[in-house]
Amino acid sequence: MSHNSFGHLFRVTTWGESHGPAIGCVVDGVPPRIALSEADIQPFLDRRRPGQSRFTTQRREPDTVKILSGVYQGQTTGTPIALMIENTDQRSKDYANIADRFRPGHADIAYHWKYGIRDPRGGGRSSARETAMRVAAGAIARKILGDDIIIRGALVQMGPHGIDRSRFDDAEIDRNDFFCPDPLAARLWEAELDAIRKSGSSVGAVVEITASGAPPGLGAPIYAKLDADLAGAMMSINAVKAVEIGDGFAAAALRGEANADEMRMNPDGSVRFLANHAGGVLGGISTGQPIVVRFAVKPTSSILTEVASVDAEGTEVDIQTKGRHDPCVGIRAVPVGEAMMACVLADHWLRHRAQCGEFVPGGLPITQM
Amino acid sequence: MSHNSFGHLFRVTTWGESHGPAIGCVVDGVPPRIALSEADIQPFLDRRRPGQSRFTTQRREPDTVKILSGVYQGQTTGTPIALMIENTDQRSKDYANIADRFRPGHADIAYHWKYGIRDPRGGGRSSARETAMRVAAGAIARKILGDDIIIRGALVQMGPHGIDRSRFDDAEIDRNDFFCPDPLAARLWEAELDAIRKSGSSVGAVVEITASGAPPGLGAPIYAKLDADLAGAMMSINAVKAVEIGDGFAAAALRGEANADEMRMNPDGSVRFLANHAGGVLGGISTGQPIVVRFAVKPTSSILTEVASVDAEGTEVDIQTKGRHDPCVGIRAVPVGEAMMACVLADHWLRHRAQCGEFVPGGLPITQM
Amino acid sequence: MSHNSFGHLFRVTTWGESHGPAIGCVVDGVPPRIALSEADIQPFLDRRRPGQSRFTTQRREPDTVKILSGVYQGQTTGTPIALMIENTDQRSKDYANIADRFRPGHADIAYHWKYGIRDPRGGGRSSARETAMRVAAGAIARKILGDDIIIRGALVQMGPHGIDRSRFDDAEIDRNDFFCPDPLAARLWEAELDAIRKSGSSVGAVVEITASGAPPGLGAPIYAKLDADLAGAMMSINAVKAVEIGDGFAAAALRGEANADEMRMNPDGSVRFLANHAGGVLGGISTGQPIVVRFAVKPTSSILTEVASVDAEGTEVDIQTKGRHDPCVGIRAVPVGEAMMACVLADHWLRHRAQCGEFVPGGLPITQM
Amino acid sequence: MSHNSFGHLFRVTTWGESHGPAIGCVVDGVPPRIALSEADIQPFLDRRRPGQSRFTTQRREPDTVKILSGVYQGQTTGTPIALMIENTDQRSKDYANIADRFRPGHADIAYHWKYGIRDPRGGGRSSARETAMRVAAGAIARKILGDDIIIRGALVQMGPHGIDRSRFDDAEIDRNDFFCPDPLAARLWEAELDAIRKSGSSVGAVVEITASGAPPGLGAPIYAKLDADLAGAMMSINAVKAVEIGDGFAAAALRGEANADEMRMNPDGSVRFLANHAGGVLGGISTGQPIVVRFAVKPTSSILTEVASVDAEGTEVDIQTKGRHDPCVGIRAVPVGEAMMACVLADHWLRHRAQCGEFVPGGLPITQM
Repeated sequence: MSHNSFGHLFRVTTWGESHGPAIGCVVDGVPPRIALSEADIQPFLDRRRPGQSRFTTQRREPDTVKILSGVYQGQTTGTPIALMIENTDQRSKDYANIADRFRPGHADIAYHWKYGIRDPRGGGRSSARETAMRVAAGAIARKILGDDIIIRGALVQMGPHGIDRSRFDDAEIDRNDFFCPDPLAARLWEAELDAIRKSGSSVGAVVEITASGAPPGLGAPIYAKLDADLAGAMMSINAVKAVEIGDGFAAAALRGEANADEMRMNPDGSVRFLANHAGGVLGGISTGQPIVVRFAVKPTSSILTEVASVDAEGTEVDIQTKGRHDPCVGIRAVPVGEAMMACVLADHWLRHRAQCGEFVPGGLPITQM
Repeated sequence: MSHNSFGHLFRVTTWGESHGPAIGCVVDGVPPRIALSEADIQPFLDRRRPGQSRFTTQRREPDTVKILSGVYQGQTTGTPIALMIENTDQRSKDYANIADRFRPGHADIAYHWKYGIRDPRGGGRSSARETAMRVAAGAIARKILGDDIIIRGALVQMGPHGIDRSRFDDAEIDRNDFFCPDPLAARLWEAELDAIRKSGSSVGAVVEITASGAPPGLGAPIYAKLDADLAGAMMSINAVKAVEIGDGFAAAALRGEANADEMRMNPDGSVRFLANHAGGVLGGISTGQPIVVRFAVKPTSSILTEVASVDAEGTEVDIQTKGRHDPCVGIRAVPVGEAMMACVLADHWLRHRAQCGEFVPGGLPITQM
Repeated sequence: MSHNSFGHLFRVTTWGESHGPAIGCVVDGVPPRIALSEADIQPFLDRRRPGQSRFTTQRREPDTVKILSGVYQGQTTGTPIALMIENTDQRSKDYANIADRFRPGHADIAYHWKYGIRDPRGGGRSSARETAMRVAAGAIARKILGDDIIIRGALVQMGPHGIDRSRFDDAEIDRNDFFCPDPLAARLWEAELDAIRKSGSSVGAVVEITASGAPPGLGAPIYAKLDADLAGAMMSINAVKAVEIGDGFAAAALRGEANADEMRMNPDGSVRFLANHAGGVLGGISTGQPIVVRFAVKPTSSILTEVASVDAEGTEVDIQTKGRHDPCVGIRAVPVGEAMMACVLADHWLRHRAQCGEFVPGGLPITQM
Repeated sequence: MSHNSFGHLFRVTTWGESHGPAIGCVVDGVPPRIALSEADIQPFLDRRRPGQSRFTTQRREPDTVKILSGVYQGQTTGTPIALMIENTDQRSKDYANIADRFRPGHADIAYHWKYGIRDPRGGGRSSARETAMRVAAGAIARKILGDDIIIRGALVQMGPHGIDRSRFDDAEIDRNDFFCPDPLAARLWEAELDAIRKSGSSVGAVVEITASGAPPGLGAPIYAKLDADLAGAMMSINAVKAVEIGDGFAAAALRGEANADEMRMNPDGSVRFLANHAGGVLGGISTGQPIVVRFAVKPTSSILTEVASVDAEGTEVDIQTKGRHDPCVGIRAVPVGEAMMACVLADHWLRHRAQCGEFVPGGLPITQM
């Protein structure tokens, strides 16, 4: 029941502070004889890496990952895989003026109250820097899932501005600085975020993650439901305040008929769902339809605007956060959300194999789902 | 990593099917020497019990809970507490016609694919009947938390109709059949749900749970964040499709300034938050402000309206669900959501005590929070 | 990390006190579609049941097990299996005189100090009665393991008298009241235990459990080694004070050559071990050889002989325990040890399947092991 | 349920292979504001370090530990503590000739069968090198336990030669190369082990670990009994084949009277045990008496003597292991056993605090224990 581990059979334990010598993780439970090298992980880290556009923090870390164990002659051995990234571009002096002052909306005061001590440099343990290790672990999870399961994230809302679903184009996602699938929205956001960034403010966002090609049967009711684990996983990402599956909150407004994902048979004997209100999960178990999760990221709490706060001595202060921050931390949450999806699916893939073994279709052919 | 357990130090394992001989749970980790009897649990079960108004399923179960272990001479002994409710009003024949047919939007087909077998009577394990044991466990969790932490749930939206926040009145919640804090909304919903019920349809809802009086320091970053655990807990409730903390999805639309919960000092030396966008949780740790969670419940999938489906032989069928169902299962989710809040807080209360011992304020007086 | 659960993927949670209304357990993680009924479990309970000879406690419980969930139409469904045995022959008044006095060598004082409260009737939670549920769970574990894995326990020492290994005969085990594989030893023990019983004393014993036919590959280094899990499982049985695998303590006296389990090839291409000093486990992983565990059971602490003690008020008392007790509790530990072996193997069988899938022989044929 | 983690609230995850770039661990759950630096850990590593006498492997590693996270300004912060030791003296070529051959009595073939792949260099993951991280974690555990709990290990038997208990002298333990408390035995062992070493053979040993000053109440029945956790922990150490608590196997030969740890009151109102057959644990809970554990270490399987084996192609081979090995690996198991004792006690110290809070004596003063 470790505080810093997630997953059960695919189990990831992360460690490290933003301005410590390094951050790292241990990935345990990986099946043996999977080809794995740093080259399988690095591209995902590069997508998350800060400093790639003017819309993310200007901290510049190469974020070069090293595999320290668990791989022999290019293959996993079934033993724990330790990964490490050395920190290279810490500028801890930026944080001197907030060491004893609590940024409103930031974890500062909560850590202070819980532990009576905190490492204030770069946010210490509460920094989004920790998510680099989630991305690294996610790359290993993808190797377990194989190429048939496609996990794809996108920013579908920035501030109050959502995308136009009719223009949703997967190919656009990697063509702009926002992981935005709607090219027009991306252009509007660019202007808007420039203004926000220059004013020293920040803005929230909504991220959508879709996994296609996952088999039915992932998820273990009652308390390891796939959607419950996804909700917990996404909510554990820094600054996330809401998670929904499929229609999510919109389902509350529906009648039973409108929410029913009706079924018909395909000519090949497989089942065809006529809709996907459920977001690919029924009763906590995947149905083979695309698994769709959305989560809301609040605006970065570290802003230049002066806000009312207090310090560790109980003095009222007005606080401005200089440092280098993401004006829209939701952008970099896209690859993190993808990684969490991969980790949860890999965990449940192993869990399913433990209890149910190879897939048993129960007499019902399943394709096209 | 049991599939049917939740919590770690306050750990609940539930068992039972809707139409089996009984349902039950084992609650482990409860501190010794807490006064406990069935009378502490029964009132919470009575609130959740079906058949109390025309707006919930007409199955009539007394839901009388028995304590089978862990209590001696009216006090907990530190050993596992087993609770059991015998099932008395099963009408399994209602389900004969859906034994091999899959209700759209229901867990039927997912269980079928995962396990290759399922108990179709009353939904078997996937029935909301399981939530009775959550409510029972929640009653024990409340005994651990003590009387200073007040947990209160309410239905704040039914179908597309939300409450008017200006009329929010805690006292109203137990005066209507909806746990609705807005008396006018309750009256409107009554008419609407009567129509839905008579037409054999169903409707979704949004539930809000608030815990006041919880101390700061609950929650263990990074992967046992209080909000992540709450999200997983609420999403594990039957039919829930979305969860948010504090401002939730609305935070995505905000600027950093608007989202900052600014702080000032009270005359008595305690900290006063000027807002609660965060819903009482920062960095995964409680701040002492009210903890606010909302979740969306989809409409019951068991409806009289005929919907397109398939059966276990792969034949296309049109399916109507007779049985006895909740036209708005969100209503009875209110006490369930309260119970999950209580369980998560109790678990983290014990976790905090393990790692941090008695509360250490770190030099900052805390009152009024 | 429940205090009252064991196993991970095959997970058993037990509850109940010796003189409460019932004892029970929840077995989670059982694969679906395994034929299971009470008739699969009852015979194992009958072997452990008290009151079957004059050498076990005279408490007479039918120990009739009921399956309350997880089985539908004679097959497991993959949902948690709840088992319950009602207590029927409690004579709690026997314990009135020891309610506030601590039997030397018994858990009384330890529970008192830990929890500040305990249920003294029949030993409460610390009674060996709890082991009935282990035996029940073990019967389910055997269904997972299948018929090729044979688990067999025997009493190999009673007090200072060990068996003669040259007379070891599996068929003898069920022919005497001791589960003793050596008919001559059984006869000697009979006389000896009669004398011990009549004098109101008790005596220790050594139990040996062997599992034949288990495949290589069970066990997960470093901290879920098969032998480590077996050691923890056996040591958790009431009154057990020592555990050894294979040669155990005798290995300490050996040279490397003497301890080497040399290997040769069989004509059919399989590996043949020339010895089994290791007891079937190398590096924490099963080798396919018989898995051999022995454990020591101390003499029952509840004896008629007066011993020096204290009471809850701090008064010195001389204490005699009347009640009904096993003069050699090691006898009934035989089926319990078998059950623990079955549970640990089933857990690791599922764990192996999760990480490694179907067995991959790595190029080396394996038979005859 | 990670394979490579142990403990629950004091949770240690280790990683690394003998000849990889480094080995390391993550220690999670450590309370905040404990003074900690490398200087607290290094002395324990130095005790375990190879190459310090002719009686341990001649591999010479400085084993310099680095703290990579979880400590700020000399104090723990409550976040995970990552430790790392870089490997410097690997001589992997020594292992070329055993890469595809299986040393009898070694984990080689078991890893091969389980994973279908293994890192043969220096034993890979199955090397005793992993125990360095246990020792490091144990040093942190001791900081949690404080100075009143004294944990002390000793070698009490080497090969067939035990110590003379009447000469047991704690002060002797650090004066010889064997951690032997009996100076005469140490001298005899020296001659004996020189002969064994020169002949390229190896020998087993028995280690005894005692923890004095631990409070009553540690341990959580039924499945987290202190003695069960100690048994699992010790058995997980490389080459350990047996574990006993208190009188252990000798208890099997005793009568109830002989095994009773009788109690009397001290003048100050505390309880005085008149014996400690139980080894400080009753019913799985510590009693305040010294906790005494012994474990048997088999002889190192890597020996110069030629033994019959097979290779990965199924060819019969005669195998001699050159490399650098401990002639009596039991010697270096002493600090490892101490560390495991410390880790288990720290875990249960936190567990006790979670469930039972500050110690409640239940009316019975406890001192002198």
